Amino acid sequence: MDILYDEAIDGALAPFEKADVLRDLQHSAPTLRLLHREEDLRPFECDGLAAYRVLPMLVAMPDNLDEVEILLKRCHALGVPVVTRGAGTGLSGGALPLERGVLLVMSRFQQIINIDPDARTATLQPGVRNLAISEAAAPYGLYYAPDPSSQIACSIGGNVAENAGGVHCLKYGLTVNNVMRVDVLTIEGEAMTLGAEALDAPGFDLLALFNGSEGMLGVITEITVKLLPLPEVAKVLMASFDDVEKAGKAVGDIIAAGIIPGGLEMMDKLAIQAAEDFVHAGYPVEAEAILLCELDGVLADVDDDCDTVRGVLENAGATDIRLARNAAERAVFWSGRKNAFPAVGRISPDYYCMDGTIPRRELPRVLNGIAELSRESGLRVANVFHAGDGNMHPLILFDANREGELALAEDVGGRILELCVAAGGSITGEHGVGREKINQMCSQFDADEITLFHALKAAFDPQRLLNPGKNIPTLARCAEFGAMHVHNNELAHPELPRF
Amino acid sequence: MDILYDEAIDGALAPFEKADVLRDLQHSAPTLRLLHREEDLRPFECDGLAAYRVLPMLVAMPDNLDEVEILLKRCHALGVPVVTRGAGTGLSGGALPLERGVLLVMSRFQQIINIDPDARTATLQPGVRNLAISEAAAPYGLYYAPDPSSQIACSIGGNVAENAGGVHCLKYGLTVNNVMRVDVLTIEGEAMTLGAEALDAPGFDLLALFNGSEGMLGVITEITVKLLPLPEVAKVLMASFDDVEKAGKAVGDIIAAGIIPGGLEMMDKLAIQAAEDFVHAGYPVEAEAILLCELDGVLADVDDDCDTVRGVLENAGATDIRLARNAAERAVFWSGRKNAFPAVGRISPDYYCMDGTIPRRELPRVLNGIAELSRESGLRVANVFHAGDGNMHPLILFDANREGELALAEDVGGRILELCVAAGGSITGEHGVGREKINQMCSQFDADEITLFHALKAAFDPQRLLNPGKNIPTLARCAEFGAMHVHNNELAHPELPRF
Repeated sequence: MDILYDEAIDGALAPFEKADVLRDLQHSAPTLRLLHREEDLRPFECDGLAAYRVLPMLVAMPDNLDEVEILLKRCHALGVPVVTRGAGTGLSGGALPLERGVLLVMSRFQQIINIDPDARTATLQPGVRNLAISEAAAPYGLYYAPDPSSQIACSIGGNVAENAGGVHCLKYGLTVNNVMRVDVLTIEGEAMTLGAEALDAPGFDLLALFNGSEGMLGVITEITVKLLPLPEVAKVLMASFDDVEKAGKAVGDIIAAGIIPGGLEMMDKLAIQAAEDFVHAGYPVEAEAILLCELDGVLADVDDDCDTVRGVLENAGATDIRLARNAAERAVFWSGRKNAFPAVGRISPDYYCMDGTIPRRELPRVLNGIAELSRESGLRVANVFHAGDGNMHPLILFDANREGELALAEDVGGRILELCVAAGGSITGEHGVGREKINQMCSQFDADEITLFHALKAAFDPQRLLNPGKNIPTLARCAEFGAMHVHNNELAHPELPRF
Repeated sequence: MDILYDEAIDGALAPFEKADVLRDLQHSAPTLRLLHREEDLRPFECDGLAAYRVLPMLVAMPDNLDEVEILLKRCHALGVPVVTRGAGTGLSGGALPLERGVLLVMSRFQQIINIDPDARTATLQPGVRNLAISEAAAPYGLYYAPDPSSQIACSIGGNVAENAGGVHCLKYGLTVNNVMRVDVLTIEGEAMTLGAEALDAPGFDLLALFNGSEGMLGVITEITVKLLPLPEVAKVLMASFDDVEKAGKAVGDIIAAGIIPGGLEMMDKLAIQAAEDFVHAGYPVEAEAILLCELDGVLADVDDDCDTVRGVLENAGATDIRLARNAAERAVFWSGRKNAFPAVGRISPDYYCMDGTIPRRELPRVLNGIAELSRESGLRVANVFHAGDGNMHPLILFDANREGELALAEDVGGRILELCVAAGGSITGEHGVGREKINQMCSQFDADEITLFHALKAAFDPQRLLNPGKNIPTLARCAEFGAMHVHNNELAHPELPRF
């Protein structure tokens, strides 16, 4: 794959040497843990998107904020790029290192600073695992709502950087809707507090700007999140359909009926079969699609809502509807969905996970379009996704050992994202742009918008030292991508400014 | 009052003449309605904050987006500042005109473009009145949640520009939480779409950045908002307290009990008495404070929640608790709250309405602090506010005809806001910074943060032509304000950059 980070930092880098940087950091921050030998750097060469690998120049693993501040100040002074990494579970290569950059690993900041059950907030260091927040809040009857699939491992700092989602986001919002305050260090090592525990904040909304900024604006050092009361009860319905389009339409019908489910997930035949083979959840393997609809809240409401949803599903043509009779069966219903990705991994040597979003009403049409792309390319595509909020996760199955299949999978993936954009959606719902979707950003945004993004970035980091080459493509890249598609390092329009 | 807009545009302005600008605009946009005679300009000299008045150079009242685009392109070319105005109901002087600037009045864009009951969205021109959205959605059983007191008159474009709040924002969020997509024109006349009807959007969160940006980043031309289902039932409890602190503490206790009321409002004795004299709502005039707590949702829940809240209020020391028995009594309970501002206007020649926010747990302490400031200054202060989300609206009563009282009121207001900031809150919850709180921004933010705000502004509008002198103070102003307090035009630190 083409690795073109240099386009973003080209010319901005001072002519530093690795040995000099190492010596400088060892001298400036004597206690800072620094890795510099190839065998020590190797474990950090990729994040959850293992298809992209780059050995970092150096890895820094600070234990305290003083070390982070010194590191940033020195890198700023020396002109050395910094890529921040949390738990490294990201799926878009946002924490992919730079050959000529420091990888700042924040995983040691694991302290839960405070749980305030009255204000219903948790204050956390950035390395605290997502699930650990809900575990710490559970004794107070509270939990943290956003629940990415990686919640057992991913950290809250990374969740903010990627504006992570999850099954519960339909009802409870993305990370941005659940974060109240963030402390950051700028590339210059200056501390800033964004947002407040109080409502709103004057000035521009820097807190929202940081959510999903993919490590390009600053380093997150502390986070206050909202906690929600655990629902009194949760019930799950599983509906089978003999047609993917009918299932897609049922999704919109449920929302239109005035129900906001705690989760509303869809799986198609290939995903159902793979999951059933793997976890034996009792899924209907002959169905073309299933919907899993979780309703949570107070018992009386949930029962009412179950009746309403059942009626909507029947009208939409569901061939079978089952209600989980107890907590154990509910867990079984969910087990297939939660293990769908590894299950698909068992039936194909490789798969490529997409993350497009679309308006709900476009689900039937886009699902059809994906099926057509699958037929055309000969690559199987499994669909398993957050249907309720139109966040699709098509899994493109391929074999990297077969000549040209990786490129074909990437091409199909790109086309699926373009389909999402054309339907009024976007190229990423919860996985971020990172390194992976940098080219698709050019189909989502025009040159004026890309230029504006760069200007915003420059307001925080004029030297472009924080995570360069991710999230926002250069105009040169877009010109190139638009003119010649990927895999070509020649500039189509060298006269365009190289941000 | 000191009017120092020029600080913000000083040096940036080309040496234009009013007559030349008028002639240019008449020529470029022959159909554009332009006002230029003093008697025509007079009605636009202030917004809802009538204490500040400036006659605009010109007023433009476009009927279509082509006219807006041409106007912006010409003003950009000529270096003429543009202040955008919606319905003119803002309370912080955000739409205060410039002596040497065009006032762009968007009030003619009143079309409801689309109500989509399935997607639960409304697409609107910016001049659509807030209440008109809910009226148009009502036939589908839907409504638009944010409900500023001015909702009968204020427009959705202004709501976005100020990130407006209201009674329902505790449960349903501010404007930013209810807007999905905004179309804008930049100062260069370029069209951009921010956000999407689909979940999330890649790149930086420009939609959130526009919410509350007070007309400094672009002109809003179209808006898609979320609609919510009308609750099945709403009930209101009114609780009396013999002590303001006890009422303040009860607010936190209700939230801590796991209840998110549809509205949770507080009034102190002075506000209660003024309201009762005015609307005869049956308020307990001997009480030191009342809480109005509205619970909405499904009947069974609402009844449960009413019982829970009643228990919490009793434990918190409420001396009397009344439940509105029917819709008519509910309307009566609310009538006092909704008319509290004009009611206070009846007992004082002038009042100054503040808009600070604080973390809920700080309510008792800050209410005490306000009482002390009132005693010290001799000015009466009435408190009537969104207690649930810690958004305070102290009304400082004064008589502008008495020598020095306006300045004293402003001073007390400034101290109250500083109290809010010191308690971990902010200087504005829903009214915006505008012209009014520009000095207090210097106590909320440090020089690095202010510099960052200017850099963000410059990413959209490098010539600083859009609403200069509002929202974000210059560093020179902050140096001056910090060193010498208000009302002094001399620069304390002339060497500081003049953004």
